Amino acid sequence: MVVAFAGERGAYAEIAAREYFGQKVELLAVPEFVDVFEAVASGKCESGIVPLENSLAGSIHQNYDLLVETGLHIQGEIFLRISHCLIANKGVKKSQIHTVYSHPQALAQCKKYLKKLTKVKVEPTSNTAGAVKKIKDDQLTDAAAIGSMQAAINFDMQVLDANIEDNQWNTTRFIALSKDFVVPPKNKKIPMKSSIVFSTKNIPGALFKCLSVFALRDIDLYKIESRPVHGKGFEYMFYLDFAGDWRMEAEQNALNHLQEITNFFRLLGSYKVGKEIHPQHKK
Amino acid sequence: MVVAFAGERGAYAEIAAREYFGQKVELLAVPEFVDVFEAVASGKCESGIVPLENSLAGSIHQNYDLLVETGLHIQGEIFLRISHCLIANKGVKKSQIHTVYSHPQALAQCKKYLKKLTKVKVEPTSNTAGAVKKIKDDQLTDAAAIGSMQAAINFDMQVLDANIEDNQWNTTRFIALSKDFVVPPKNKKIPMKSSIVFSTKNIPGALFKCLSVFALRDIDLYKIESRPVHGKGFEYMFYLDFAGDWRMEAEQNALNHLQEITNFFRLLGSYKVGKEIHPQHKK
Repeated sequence: MVVAFAGERGAYAEIAAREYFGQKVELLAVPEFVDVFEAVASGKCESGIVPLENSLAGSIHQNYDLLVETGLHIQGEIFLRISHCLIANKGVKKSQIHTVYSHPQALAQCKKYLKKLTKVKVEPTSNTAGAVKKIKDDQLTDAAAIGSMQAAINFDMQVLDANIEDNQWNTTRFIALSKDFVVPPKNKKIPMKSSIVFSTKNIPGALFKCLSVFALRDIDLYKIESRPVHGKGFEYMFYLDFAGDWRMEAEQNALNHLQEITNFFRLLGSYKVGKEIHPQHKK
Repeated sequence: MVVAFAGERGAYAEIAAREYFGQKVELLAVPEFVDVFEAVASGKCESGIVPLENSLAGSIHQNYDLLVETGLHIQGEIFLRISHCLIANKGVKKSQIHTVYSHPQALAQCKKYLKKLTKVKVEPTSNTAGAVKKIKDDQLTDAAAIGSMQAAINFDMQVLDANIEDNQWNTTRFIALSKDFVVPPKNKKIPMKSSIVFSTKNIPGALFKCLSVFALRDIDLYKIESRPVHGKGFEYMFYLDFAGDWRMEAEQNALNHLQEITNFFRLLGSYKVGKEIHPQHKK
């Protein structure tokens, strides 16, 4: 089985892929999210891992768009605590470091930590794994990189400090893509989640009516988010996750009912509710 | 009047601030979003401009958190088309360019355009305005920067190409902050929007009940978004924008009704529905 992810080896998506599919899964690193979707749609890879939302930065609308455009499905999810490390070449001490390389977003997320390191200047890189590669390739002894534990392992580097991000509530929800609709065997004991996308007719209370199909059947919601449809004024697309398996009777009735009152509807998948993974605690 | 924004001069937030408050407004550039909130909360600045959501990247949860934490209000909004330019020193021709500097996100948003420039390598910078400053300070004649029209104007540079982003549907919604609750004079003819944050009791159909307070009064919604509350399992915070002014009777009744069934509620502001600005078309 080959799984695609966007970015370089050592990216957070690689950790998510290994946690979801097992440490020994074969991985293909591609440049962009769209390339992950293409790799799965073309059959080149059996699955792909992409982020769908982050606890601080919100939903990644681009990947919702790509789900709808490509017709791919969600076969599962995993929540990954994003935890940055200060990484250096072996033998380098913290007191030797004068420059820290990383992606601007990672540098910004570790601002308080960096302030405590005396007289350090920061240098932007295109991605976190690339920062680790740079200090390794150039054999820098006066510099460090901010990146993932996985990047430190991949490049055989030293972790000087772990969990250095200012806000510890930094979790990304990754989804595993599939070309076909993949569902685990029916089992009422396993907590399941289903994801749908729909747009409503532009009438007052339209969303209220849509939610009634779940509320009247006591189906819990995990997520609801509206998004304006480009160039269509007051038309909205909704992203909704609900508790349950679409194959169960109440859920099936709810979705049939919903389709009576929506303009557009797509079931993205029904899958096991994902676990939250904190990779730092394992090592 | 002094208005704070995060980033360097020439950042997209500067354009938003000038469009909202007038070209001659006095501006204060601060490093981070949190500094904008602090400048307004402390009274150092009368207002501040921060992004709240982007059409591709989604809502910026961090700024919703800061609204709740600081108790500041929304006094208005503006939608800014994010439009990147290729910027160079005066006299430099496109054929001379071998390196393009910018923030990794801006470089990624212009990937297709950059592919068409032959043999160009990209170099990351911490922000787009900083990229323009760099090629100006170093008087580079074989390099360009990707940044805003405003950055080109501020640094008195040449715009080689405008609107170079791959996806033209790239709009950021900025909000103007205020310490006190600021509302325009009551006027039924001006379309108004109100923003609220609330959390519901953890019971099935809780959100459905909350939306009923608007649907039963024929109040339209602009936006709804759920967000899990950190460390509280199934407790959710909701961000909701509805059409109307909280001082009008139906809206006031709806909000009173809503507070009967929520754990937490805050009215962030009532303000005129914002315009969409496309700064490139003005020059």
